[in-house]
Amino acid sequence: MFLDIKLDKETPVYVQIKNYISDMILRGMLRSGEKLPSTRELSSILSISRNTVISAYEFLVDEGFIYMEKGKGAFVSDVKVDIQEKWNMDWSNQINDYARFAEDLDIIKHETKWKKGMISFKSIAPDESLFDVEEFKKAFLNRISIEGEKILNYGYAQGYRALIQYLFKYMSNKGVDTEEKDILITNGFTEGFNLILSSITEKGDKILCENPTHNTAIKIMKLHDLDIIGVPMEDDGVNISKLKDELSKNKFKLSYFIPSYHNPTGVVMSVEKRIELYKALKQYDIPIIEDGFNEELRYSGAHVAPIAALSGRGNGVIYIGSFSKILFPGIRIGWILADRKLIEYLESVKRSKNIHTSSLDQAIFYDYLSGGNFEKYIKKARKVYKEKYEFALRCAEKYIPYKKIFGEGGLHIFLELQELNSRDVLKECYRKGIVFTPGDIFYTDDNGYNTLRLGFSRVNKEDIEKGFKIIGEVIKSKT
Amino acid sequence: MFLDIKLDKETPVYVQIKNYISDMILRGMLRSGEKLPSTRELSSILSISRNTVISAYEFLVDEGFIYMEKGKGAFVSDVKVDIQEKWNMDWSNQINDYARFAEDLDIIKHETKWKKGMISFKSIAPDESLFDVEEFKKAFLNRISIEGEKILNYGYAQGYRALIQYLFKYMSNKGVDTEEKDILITNGFTEGFNLILSSITEKGDKILCENPTHNTAIKIMKLHDLDIIGVPMEDDGVNISKLKDELSKNKFKLSYFIPSYHNPTGVVMSVEKRIELYKALKQYDIPIIEDGFNEELRYSGAHVAPIAALSGRGNGVIYIGSFSKILFPGIRIGWILADRKLIEYLESVKRSKNIHTSSLDQAIFYDYLSGGNFEKYIKKARKVYKEKYEFALRCAEKYIPYKKIFGEGGLHIFLELQELNSRDVLKECYRKGIVFTPGDIFYTDDNGYNTLRLGFSRVNKEDIEKGFKIIGEVIKSKT
Repeated sequence: MFLDIKLDKETPVYVQIKNYISDMILRGMLRSGEKLPSTRELSSILSISRNTVISAYEFLVDEGFIYMEKGKGAFVSDVKVDIQEKWNMDWSNQINDYARFAEDLDIIKHETKWKKGMISFKSIAPDESLFDVEEFKKAFLNRISIEGEKILNYGYAQGYRALIQYLFKYMSNKGVDTEEKDILITNGFTEGFNLILSSITEKGDKILCENPTHNTAIKIMKLHDLDIIGVPMEDDGVNISKLKDELSKNKFKLSYFIPSYHNPTGVVMSVEKRIELYKALKQYDIPIIEDGFNEELRYSGAHVAPIAALSGRGNGVIYIGSFSKILFPGIRIGWILADRKLIEYLESVKRSKNIHTSSLDQAIFYDYLSGGNFEKYIKKARKVYKEKYEFALRCAEKYIPYKKIFGEGGLHIFLELQELNSRDVLKECYRKGIVFTPGDIFYTDDNGYNTLRLGFSRVNKEDIEKGFKIIGEVIKSKT
Repeated sequence: MFLDIKLDKETPVYVQIKNYISDMILRGMLRSGEKLPSTRELSSILSISRNTVISAYEFLVDEGFIYMEKGKGAFVSDVKVDIQEKWNMDWSNQINDYARFAEDLDIIKHETKWKKGMISFKSIAPDESLFDVEEFKKAFLNRISIEGEKILNYGYAQGYRALIQYLFKYMSNKGVDTEEKDILITNGFTEGFNLILSSITEKGDKILCENPTHNTAIKIMKLHDLDIIGVPMEDDGVNISKLKDELSKNKFKLSYFIPSYHNPTGVVMSVEKRIELYKALKQYDIPIIEDGFNEELRYSGAHVAPIAALSGRGNGVIYIGSFSKILFPGIRIGWILADRKLIEYLESVKRSKNIHTSSLDQAIFYDYLSGGNFEKYIKKARKVYKEKYEFALRCAEKYIPYKKIFGEGGLHIFLELQELNSRDVLKECYRKGIVFTPGDIFYTDDNGYNTLRLGFSRVNKEDIEKGFKIIGEVIKSKT
């Protein structure tokens, strides 16, 4: 029996011997009371050192698989008899509805998958070749030399002090009054949004948002069992009269908006609408969660203040910020700026979920930002993405028969087609080596079946043109 | 009015002007329709460049605070009238019971706080001066040069591939059969435990554990609204007959154990008890969550296999691992090893919570570990902590009148006193400059009022002796 052990080169030999024997016991091939070969015999059979076999046997004794009798040798334990029968837990029965729902809503698992050689317009992640890795490295080396041990040990749930201070200033430069406010560092937007919903909403609560809206936000709202009511988008932001209508008809617990480069439409909400929206929500005393998504990326035109800036010293707006849509998403850093009392609660919830966000990442990020690198990077990124956006727009206009192109920038183009299901288009495009995101996943209702989102941030111009052309041809063939 | 602007040196001047004016408007000091000084006037009043004032006014226009009339100048907007009244949301009314409970259970916020100059025995975080920062730096530089851009962009919810592969091998070297199992990388133990409870339990479900047990685990179980049933600890692990008794009386959904260097007692569960426990839980088909807490720190004696190793190809044990109790807690990396199907669900839940754990941290950690640094570090750390443990033990025996000292190692000493409330002892010690953790927070019931935990990992020998002496004196004075 022992001759069929196949020793590989990666695992320590004693571990392989041990695993082989315990496996034999668990499968019932070696029975309780059975005598094992002596360490001398086995070492000779396998041409390995006797010490290796001794180690393996010692482990097996510790794990209760075998026992030693003085002068007699090693025997298979009794005590393992009951363990021999494999524990076969039926996990599909153990999983609760929440986890099942999370899996159902996990589009990464269920949407059409990219395969090698395909052109993918699914991603709106930043183009990593723009990252300034050298500056990042410098920031790391600087921080690690200043406080290496400290940032590798436990930090604070609220976040790394210097980064919080930096972000206060950063938000204040956007016109936000930070008096009586506080900041909590989160693992990106996703965690921030989760923390807020976990701390404020109850199952069945109504939440008001744009329609369409960020698909991850929809997923998180659904996982919190919220009743999502979406208000249609127009070219300059949400339809205000419909928003007021919904406010008068329903009792909302919260609202969620993406005023700049709205995902997926790319629309920037006008100043007038920001003010109208703010006034309406304030009138009904419904907190606003403002998603600062890609605010930094505005290609053109003047600065537009976030809704949080309109609020002055008021405390009804919760701002979620994140650079990770354009810079270093791999390190997962975002923040919530809100009323100090609310942040106190969110901090405790955060601590209960994962203690704190990586101190190392926060420290590097702080060093990188405070060195003025972000401004340089954003200038470069804006230029590249603006050019790419304009190119993609021209390609879309040239090749794709659309009903409407939304928005005015961002890392993607959102299209509405004539009466045509974009999933049918996707199916055909997939065969021709092209994938994109069907627009229906951004809708809070059954609309949007004829929309699609084409992310171009990580696709080169040649492929943008080639891909859009194919998409256009498929659409033409179907109409 | 404008003369009282006090310009600081840190914020851009246009921002300060802008904030000053919007503040005046929001406070009603500047009324709708009121004319502002011309940009020329204001620049001369404040002795700043006219362009700076122009920038500030442009921002104010964008934010809707003021409007320009050609040839006439800048005026306070009408539209702000409704905004002027400060939005005063009452957040204490908005917070739900969950967040309130999380805040209540947040001992960091409510326990006696350390003040400068005090000796604190509260922490069981590793001593950061032992960290091998140079090797960590090398690991960073190596990873960043190999795949810098990649690890700064989005990664996978399941985790960084190479780290997962490393951990498979690592677990297999502990005797765990990884066939049909999978690994999910988490933000430390805390997130891992949260993900599991979120995915398996429902409100009111019964969970079986040791009593006392890890206070953070108790907090998380309570926040999941679980009915916690604790089984008393003995010197070689949980009381097995009482465990069987509870199993026969209750219907449990899950169980949670810390077999090595149990927190807070420091007890290492014997092999016999591990087997007995495994068999009992298997018989009732109740999944075991095994907390690999400080397993790596065993000072003495032979290797003891984790319960997951006893399970062979069986799938009833969910193992949560983390190095962060001894190494780099600041980067928050842990893992769950469990049945493949379960991990699939947990992966979706993880994605919905925060997309993924920092790719950068995972990549550095992988590089550090695979370079063989962990073995070197753990050898050093074990030696230092063992010596410190033995010293602390001698001090406890010499100075503190105790009823019982638990355990056989770890980064703390857990003491049971004669009939004396350790919170009374703490109150008195605090006045004398000493803090520690009262033991009751580790109990699942009302016991443990006469216990305390003395963490020594970050206290030097001199302070250990000094502190224990004072604690001993306080106890003597009370009995």
